[in-house]
Amino acid sequence: MGIILKDILAVIPYGDDDKVEKHTIYIDGKYIAGIDKEPEGFKADKVIDGTDRLVIPGLINAHTHTYMTTMRNVADDLSFMDWLFKTIDPIEQQLTDEDAYYGSLLGQMEMIKSGTTTFNDQQMHIHQTTKAVKDSGMRAVISRGLVGDKYDKEDVRLKQALEEMGDGADCDRLTFLLGPHAPYSCGPEYLKMIADVARENGYGIHMHIAESQTETDNMKKDHNCTPTEYVRDAGIFDSPTIAAHCIRVSDSDMDIMKQNNVSVVTNPASNMKLGNGFAPVPEMVAKGINVCLGTDGAASNNSQNMFSEMRLLGLIHKGTHDTPQCISAKQTFRMATLNGAKALGLEKEIGSIEVGKKADLAILRLDVPSMMPNNNLIASLVYSANGSETDTVIIDGNVVMENRIINTLDEAKIYSKIKEIINRLGLDKRSY
Amino acid sequence: MGIILKDILAVIPYGDDDKVEKHTIYIDGKYIAGIDKEPEGFKADKVIDGTDRLVIPGLINAHTHTYMTTMRNVADDLSFMDWLFKTIDPIEQQLTDEDAYYGSLLGQMEMIKSGTTTFNDQQMHIHQTTKAVKDSGMRAVISRGLVGDKYDKEDVRLKQALEEMGDGADCDRLTFLLGPHAPYSCGPEYLKMIADVARENGYGIHMHIAESQTETDNMKKDHNCTPTEYVRDAGIFDSPTIAAHCIRVSDSDMDIMKQNNVSVVTNPASNMKLGNGFAPVPEMVAKGINVCLGTDGAASNNSQNMFSEMRLLGLIHKGTHDTPQCISAKQTFRMATLNGAKALGLEKEIGSIEVGKKADLAILRLDVPSMMPNNNLIASLVYSANGSETDTVIIDGNVVMENRIINTLDEAKIYSKIKEIINRLGLDKRSY
Repeated sequence: MGIILKDILAVIPYGDDDKVEKHTIYIDGKYIAGIDKEPEGFKADKVIDGTDRLVIPGLINAHTHTYMTTMRNVADDLSFMDWLFKTIDPIEQQLTDEDAYYGSLLGQMEMIKSGTTTFNDQQMHIHQTTKAVKDSGMRAVISRGLVGDKYDKEDVRLKQALEEMGDGADCDRLTFLLGPHAPYSCGPEYLKMIADVARENGYGIHMHIAESQTETDNMKKDHNCTPTEYVRDAGIFDSPTIAAHCIRVSDSDMDIMKQNNVSVVTNPASNMKLGNGFAPVPEMVAKGINVCLGTDGAASNNSQNMFSEMRLLGLIHKGTHDTPQCISAKQTFRMATLNGAKALGLEKEIGSIEVGKKADLAILRLDVPSMMPNNNLIASLVYSANGSETDTVIIDGNVVMENRIINTLDEAKIYSKIKEIINRLGLDKRSY
Repeated sequence: MGIILKDILAVIPYGDDDKVEKHTIYIDGKYIAGIDKEPEGFKADKVIDGTDRLVIPGLINAHTHTYMTTMRNVADDLSFMDWLFKTIDPIEQQLTDEDAYYGSLLGQMEMIKSGTTTFNDQQMHIHQTTKAVKDSGMRAVISRGLVGDKYDKEDVRLKQALEEMGDGADCDRLTFLLGPHAPYSCGPEYLKMIADVARENGYGIHMHIAESQTETDNMKKDHNCTPTEYVRDAGIFDSPTIAAHCIRVSDSDMDIMKQNNVSVVTNPASNMKLGNGFAPVPEMVAKGINVCLGTDGAASNNSQNMFSEMRLLGLIHKGTHDTPQCISAKQTFRMATLNGAKALGLEKEIGSIEVGKKADLAILRLDVPSMMPNNNLIASLVYSANGSETDTVIIDGNVVMENRIINTLDEAKIYSKIKEIINRLGLDKRSY
């Protein structure tokens, strides 16, 4: 399909800087095929008028668990232990594969409606998120959560993870990582086994590291090291790694991450909501670590809206560091786009509006109060937009949403299924 | 006009608690006239179906400067001094009365579209915000910012403030406060004069207090006291006071506020964005201070969306205090509604859905991803909603917005005027 975005303001990368400029953009099949220059032999099936519109690279949600979206707002304002063990875990045990599929679809609907085109998902029900991605039209990076103690290449979860990678055969919007869950849920031998499998097969890694003070304290007590050192010593960092949270990390831990090209995905809402604090993002940036942005699951955020997350990221460190100058709107926007692409090994494919990249784009309305005046639009994206400005979303060259209607999914059916699940689990009777 | 909200989920107060329950609500003229019981002689002109809808008391933005909305995103990621003196002040000097009127309308449009029905505004261009309120249909509390050094009841700004109070004669949606700007911009004699005028005439006070460490440090140096003590000693707290920011306050300052029934309006986004830090909200709540919520102006937030602000308030203190239990979703929602009404002396009129109160209501869609599942809706309002769920807004019994179309204002004309202003001021050429 050929699509023209005609005379539209666009966020265009110039090295480390982004600028907002008016261009005409040509999409041919899956790709951005031309900017201001019509590609040879191009045929337009659709022209989108750029008046009062801004096109941005689709946002990249670099850490989430979409199947948990059914658990949005079921466990709030609780201590981390009560949240996890008394509320979330018991519900999770009752979730079926179909529940996971619809939960993922609900999360994906929320992401599409707020301009996200790619997400990095760690999950427990294989084939379900991949199936949901094939249906929604989104791009995703999938890892099956891995938990264990032994060096055992026959581990059932690992086998499931490898089996699931086959789901990508007929969908090039799907790629896969190995997902050792966390230092506290993977013993040293198990983690070494995962590291070996990753190294031998060229797989990347998606892992939670140093999410809480308890994790860091226990690691010191049990292994006399930091969570970061523990993961490094198992050999995990020999493979490209995206590490979620990284809140309770020392200066030396950050040096280890930089030396090993570990990308950090920060999750400000989840970290605050669970009382875990603030990741040292300005310090990581100063060390040259690639920092990107994720929502985490809806059970601990409780949103999958990357605009809300950008706003938090752009604001909170100014508060903790007593200066407005420790992170800029432009840095924040990069963390939600190109830095996420880099962390997921997809920077040649997505993350910016450039000829030759995949057409993963979100088109926002500018004729709404939150984007008015229209003069400093990257700041508007970070500080005043709420995500609902997203009007049209194109992923892999397909118009997945237009005028806020998702073309790929039956929204009413998904809501109805979510209600059925909530009723079956008895969560409708849980009063807050 | 008679309006029925039929079989609709509603947030209903029970003492200090709120519950979400299904009811039928009768609006007669300006008032909520019945809940589940049709008032005698009631005639319905309009029935709103409650299927997949939630009605909440309209949010109360307890501190803003709407005329500044034209300055949204013109000065970001700058030090406080560069922000104020090098950027905002020089632009402000060029704003005409008409600019202030359209700026206020833009801010009010953003508030209406995100469920806010009342705002507390401190401004510099008399008659402009009041005119904009008469046109928009919102409810507002207005103060003219007062700055000076002498004890002078003929002070031009004070005279303007008193003159402007006449604008309420034909509009009972308008009430007024005296607005001494801040401890650092009001000398002791001037502040004492304002306190005397307030006490003699029964006026309330709206003032910025202890917004930055610089303010607190300078006050110690110049007057050997805290900003809170300085304001108390001038006699300001003899009148009902709503104090904005209150970030750099001591334990003893908070005791002074409690003893004097001062309400505090916290402004989390603005405080972070300008590098001023976090107000000690959990500590204020523990002392029994009435804490409410405001956005501050769009030059320092940069949004007028109270849902974004609720989310910040509900999250950031969990981060700074390392516990999810220092502020709940229900407390946060109260700060954005009834506590704001109390702070503005309007708690008998607005702030909750009760028979006899004014019909100031926002109706939200529940058939959207951010509100799904529909089981813990007060948590959804705080943690997952972004404000765009607001479908219909009723203020003073009038349907000000329906299906997201504002009935009272010409949206396109306001955007066009904002563009003209930005061009005239040369702000369109200011690249970020």
